[in-house]
Amino acid sequence: MTTHTHQTAPTQFVEANGVRFAYRRFGKAGGVPLLFNMHFTGTIDHWDPAVTDGLASGREVILFDNAGIGGSSGDVPTSIEGMAANAAAFVKALGLSQVDVLGFSLGGLVAQALTQAEPQLVRKLVLVGTGPRSGEGMDSLTPEAQVIFGATYDEPDHLWLKVFFTDSEASQRAGRAFLKRFRARTQDRDPESNEKVAPAQLEALGKWGAPQPNAYDYLKTITQPTLILNGHNDVIIYTINSYILFQNLPNAQLILYPDGNHGAQYQYPERFALHVGHFLDEKV
Amino acid sequence: MTTHTHQTAPTQFVEANGVRFAYRRFGKAGGVPLLFNMHFTGTIDHWDPAVTDGLASGREVILFDNAGIGGSSGDVPTSIEGMAANAAAFVKALGLSQVDVLGFSLGGLVAQALTQAEPQLVRKLVLVGTGPRSGEGMDSLTPEAQVIFGATYDEPDHLWLKVFFTDSEASQRAGRAFLKRFRARTQDRDPESNEKVAPAQLEALGKWGAPQPNAYDYLKTITQPTLILNGHNDVIIYTINSYILFQNLPNAQLILYPDGNHGAQYQYPERFALHVGHFLDEKV
Repeated sequence: MTTHTHQTAPTQFVEANGVRFAYRRFGKAGGVPLLFNMHFTGTIDHWDPAVTDGLASGREVILFDNAGIGGSSGDVPTSIEGMAANAAAFVKALGLSQVDVLGFSLGGLVAQALTQAEPQLVRKLVLVGTGPRSGEGMDSLTPEAQVIFGATYDEPDHLWLKVFFTDSEASQRAGRAFLKRFRARTQDRDPESNEKVAPAQLEALGKWGAPQPNAYDYLKTITQPTLILNGHNDVIIYTINSYILFQNLPNAQLILYPDGNHGAQYQYPERFALHVGHFLDEKV
Repeated sequence: MTTHTHQTAPTQFVEANGVRFAYRRFGKAGGVPLLFNMHFTGTIDHWDPAVTDGLASGREVILFDNAGIGGSSGDVPTSIEGMAANAAAFVKALGLSQVDVLGFSLGGLVAQALTQAEPQLVRKLVLVGTGPRSGEGMDSLTPEAQVIFGATYDEPDHLWLKVFFTDSEASQRAGRAFLKRFRARTQDRDPESNEKVAPAQLEALGKWGAPQPNAYDYLKTITQPTLILNGHNDVIIYTINSYILFQNLPNAQLILYPDGNHGAQYQYPERFALHVGHFLDEKV
């Protein structure tokens, strides 16, 4: 078997739920694979190679485009539950009976809904830069997010310097290093998301974030060992939401990094890979 | 050089500030040593060997009795600043120009005051189960702490099963394992603290916790890389105080463990040694 990396893993396809899912799979096979669930409008190629390769050194990682995103066919559902159902169908189509699930931002909502809907499918859960149903400031884009997503940038992917990093010199330097890694794969790159993706995802985000009575109760039903990670001052999904997840999940660990915004795991990729790798490897 | 452990390291003595300090020093020499600052009424022998030996595998560790505690002479100061001045004098008496500082509970307050008073002496800071000046519920013992410290126990050290662990079966099981490790050293054991210790420490705790305007401002001056750790539901120094420390310290990482009370590091000693060891080893 060849040893593929983030740079070399070929894009593969599998059919399920009427969707042709694009995915890549690489790393150390033999254990429970780690399924990555992507943020708002992102595709397979929006993951940081330092994070995926870092984690792939200890386990198999699976990156995929959910329905309607990047190289996958179908429509983006207008609910997080719909996205979770597609993710579950994708996992089963790969013939896997159990995975570890990592979700970042919107992907963290999908990861929670997937675990609620199909608890037997999920061994451990990693929730990065995300929040609970009815989380603080989650009923719509935060004021900061509206400014950041509404602005124009010299180059389109400079958007991520504002979304994922703080204004500190150290964070922006880490951001430029991230963009370099992010752009490094040039062969067999995933198509960017089309114009139908954002509106559908925003509708789903709005439903998830809408105020509901006893909104956090569902978290008590997620009993999988869970690791929650975020930066010091996430302006896209406020950091306090990571603390709320921690308070309400019965078996969760919380790790927050200094001087970080929404993408703290890209600011400290080695530290992140070590913390997540240790969490996934730990006997519980 | 013999390789000492928590069990075998001899108690040594050094004079400074008119105090004869009892201490033990062991582990991998050559780098920056890690100085342990103990909690309310505790002595050298109240540290968990799984934690001290776990950390000693990667660095030298120094356990000591501050003035008036256990085997050290002198009086317990009635202020945290006084305790910090004694700790600084002790470090200098050992001929050390810089240490990493770990403080647990009251020891975490001493660690903060030591870093404020002598920043050049402290490379990195580890704050465990502790809080800021004027922290939430820190102006006196919490109601839970009053009940726990006011009760009587079959054996005196069963107190720690209530102080450090939650009522869950898993936590109490971890607590019994901790007590076994805690009792394992029988030779050259440190004398328990005398009856003058608790009143002086309570007075110091009261001054630290008293409400003050802009109480958290001092945290901005502590620029050392800091790791903050606590359990999910610390009833002695409420967990939210760890979050407040994280919010206000300019360069802090926060790690919170599930199903933990005031002594979460004793509930998960291997995980704790890994997290702290990685933090101290990381290039910054």
